Amino acid sequence: MSSFVLEYVRQNQPRFLDELKAFLRIPSISTLPEHNADCRSAAEMLASELSRIGMQNVRLIETQGHPMVYADWLHQEGRPTALFYGHYDVQPPDPLDEWLTPPFEPTERNGNIYARGAVDDKGQVWAQIKALESHLASTGSLPINVRVLLEGEEEVGGEGIESYVSSKPAQLKADFALISDTELFAPGLPTLCVGLRGMIYTEISVRGARTDLHSGMYGGAAPNPFIALAQIIARLKDEQGHILIPGFYDDMIPPTPEELAAWKSLPFDEEHYRATEVGSPKLVGEPGYSVLERTWARPTLDVHGMPGGFIGAGAKTVIPAKATAKVSMRLVPGMTPEKSFHQFESFVKQIAPAGVEVDVQLIHAGNPCILPPDNPYIRAATRALRRVWGRDTVFIRSGGSIPIVGDFANYLGLPSVMMGFGLPDDNLHAPNEKFNLKNFELGIESLICFLEEAAG
Amino acid sequence: MSSFVLEYVRQNQPRFLDELKAFLRIPSISTLPEHNADCRSAAEMLASELSRIGMQNVRLIETQGHPMVYADWLHQEGRPTALFYGHYDVQPPDPLDEWLTPPFEPTERNGNIYARGAVDDKGQVWAQIKALESHLASTGSLPINVRVLLEGEEEVGGEGIESYVSSKPAQLKADFALISDTELFAPGLPTLCVGLRGMIYTEISVRGARTDLHSGMYGGAAPNPFIALAQIIARLKDEQGHILIPGFYDDMIPPTPEELAAWKSLPFDEEHYRATEVGSPKLVGEPGYSVLERTWARPTLDVHGMPGGFIGAGAKTVIPAKATAKVSMRLVPGMTPEKSFHQFESFVKQIAPAGVEVDVQLIHAGNPCILPPDNPYIRAATRALRRVWGRDTVFIRSGGSIPIVGDFANYLGLPSVMMGFGLPDDNLHAPNEKFNLKNFELGIESLICFLEEAAG
Repeated sequence: MSSFVLEYVRQNQPRFLDELKAFLRIPSISTLPEHNADCRSAAEMLASELSRIGMQNVRLIETQGHPMVYADWLHQEGRPTALFYGHYDVQPPDPLDEWLTPPFEPTERNGNIYARGAVDDKGQVWAQIKALESHLASTGSLPINVRVLLEGEEEVGGEGIESYVSSKPAQLKADFALISDTELFAPGLPTLCVGLRGMIYTEISVRGARTDLHSGMYGGAAPNPFIALAQIIARLKDEQGHILIPGFYDDMIPPTPEELAAWKSLPFDEEHYRATEVGSPKLVGEPGYSVLERTWARPTLDVHGMPGGFIGAGAKTVIPAKATAKVSMRLVPGMTPEKSFHQFESFVKQIAPAGVEVDVQLIHAGNPCILPPDNPYIRAATRALRRVWGRDTVFIRSGGSIPIVGDFANYLGLPSVMMGFGLPDDNLHAPNEKFNLKNFELGIESLICFLEEAAG
Repeated sequence: MSSFVLEYVRQNQPRFLDELKAFLRIPSISTLPEHNADCRSAAEMLASELSRIGMQNVRLIETQGHPMVYADWLHQEGRPTALFYGHYDVQPPDPLDEWLTPPFEPTERNGNIYARGAVDDKGQVWAQIKALESHLASTGSLPINVRVLLEGEEEVGGEGIESYVSSKPAQLKADFALISDTELFAPGLPTLCVGLRGMIYTEISVRGARTDLHSGMYGGAAPNPFIALAQIIARLKDEQGHILIPGFYDDMIPPTPEELAAWKSLPFDEEHYRATEVGSPKLVGEPGYSVLERTWARPTLDVHGMPGGFIGAGAKTVIPAKATAKVSMRLVPGMTPEKSFHQFESFVKQIAPAGVEVDVQLIHAGNPCILPPDNPYIRAATRALRRVWGRDTVFIRSGGSIPIVGDFANYLGLPSVMMGFGLPDDNLHAPNEKFNLKNFELGIESLICFLEEAAG
């Protein structure tokens, strides 16, 4: 990092933090209609700040819900263009009585700043803007072209941004996306998330009798759709968690030996994870694979709920005509939602017991994604992180999906560099959310360096 | 039947029917609070009629809900005492637009009377009262001692009457109960129900993680309580419907060869039953047993609902911390709820997969019951039915339980003669409920003869 820029960051850090606190004081809770005006205020504050630091074409993009904020700076002809993404909306703060200090009165304590949205995602959005400001203020330009797209509906499904991205607007033309909404694997450990699992979310509906029947009168003759579903579900996975759908694993691309070796060296204690994060008597899953492999790089199958029948208190003796199971599968690189769903549907129909009709519906699907370690923007990010954190980046994956990564890939063909600075204990979506102040500062410096490294 | 009594019945039949219509016009829907006054009107009409015909000690017995009606006539010292039971409350009439004539405007059509409550149970209660009236009016006495206990909460669980019966009041002292709330197996076929299945209704609760978890982040490591439940349920029965709980069948007393032979001779068409009553692609259940055996004399296991997790529309990717299955078993003579529940609970805990905690609760229990064909009141009923219907009685069972039968047996030690005159297509609890007019008349005559035969 040029010494001018570094000096600017260090001199202005107290002001950056004061500004972040002002941003955090806005209760931009996207899911609560009484905070609609606050969401707009947060968007307007971002737009105003982007203008102030010298970004151009700044404007709000209206959606059916909360507005997005757009800005760009495109004066490095021949150099790559980055699309910066983040979100200004936050989760509701409940339960309020578990907060040590009020969620919308940002408070410094133990080297952290505590507030709803501190790390998810206002602090990280502010770090992006401060990185841009530091370049623009100290050098009058940015090392590469940058577009910024910030949304206010991430916590409520992000429909507005998906609809916008799917229209492939010319002003989102870029070479890669930079997403600052993830975390370090451990304190001080620079981390890039390079893979996400995909998903198919399905419903298996089973119909037995024409109408609900009395289990006294008809029990022993009428098919029970819940028992049929139990028989089906019990045959989808063995008791070790291995999925039994024929061909399901055929196309999967396993992690490379280098990736596996790197995961083994990560500071991860399965017993600590079981006791503190999961809290079950025992962890489950396929023998021979570590927890990180099972949650990042193996397909899974889960049941989320089984609507139908009687779910009230007490005893109602009904054989329901119909019951449903909400079943999802996580997919890993190599697998496609289309083929996996076809395999699933065929197998479910094949193993369905006699006496019932089975229907399988696809409710939602998302592709898995993986960025190869030799992607030039990943390499640039790695170089930047080494300069700031003084050590090699660890490449991790996430077992979940980040919908915007899929949207950028599917609609715009953009790879996403997921470079975030949260910590695993930052209490996302929970009381006492925090952002480490050192990570805020090093995050800004990392983004500054990344802009330089991405230039060439 | 003495010719005096017979003549009285035949001469007064038109009036009996008019009175029944007046009774049916009262919308005594016990489950709807706006009909509380109607329920009381129906009880008062019964009390007034019981007084008018010469029954004694007539009174309403108040409950937390709708009142019961009591009356007696106890002037045959040395002869048995019968406890007549029926209920004056009815089901709601919805869906209203499927009724050809309004549910509370009783209408004669095709030899039937159509109205809500026509057969269940107002018409049968009225037949009981008219049988008593016919004896009292034509002879000045009854052949045996009779107590009458009519309730107004049968359709809402019968808590009031159970609480009253459980207090074992002296005024319910009797030798047997007569319950007129069942049906003939087929038109013209005199029928006595002599066996009921018992039940245990349970909840299996499975807990995996401490809190709900995201299936992307934790899928592959965190236990899924619905999958655990599916694995448990799938091991409770085999695919043929045979229950796999060790020892479950050990104590059951199978039907006698005579009973089985009699059932085989009943007019019952399994394919017609499948198509018209159940409506499923195929019937299920243990091979080697007929539908009547499977529903009357074999234990069964059903799942009624599986609360927990996400049951809304769409996709929510939660691994629920907890899920529950409502599982009931029907028990047959020889089995007891206590032992069956113990076997079930032990087996469920034994087969529970690793990683979850399982709890099994008993929600409700009822004993199976059976009356031997040589019970003197069953023999008396059989003789009475032969006199009126001109053919032998068929002895059937019911797969369900009739709670009042259990209450009379458990608290008062009374066997119940279940002599009813409905037909299988009478649309109980459905639109266009009806009662066959000939059955109403022959029902009164059957009850008259039964009083005579029970005298010894």
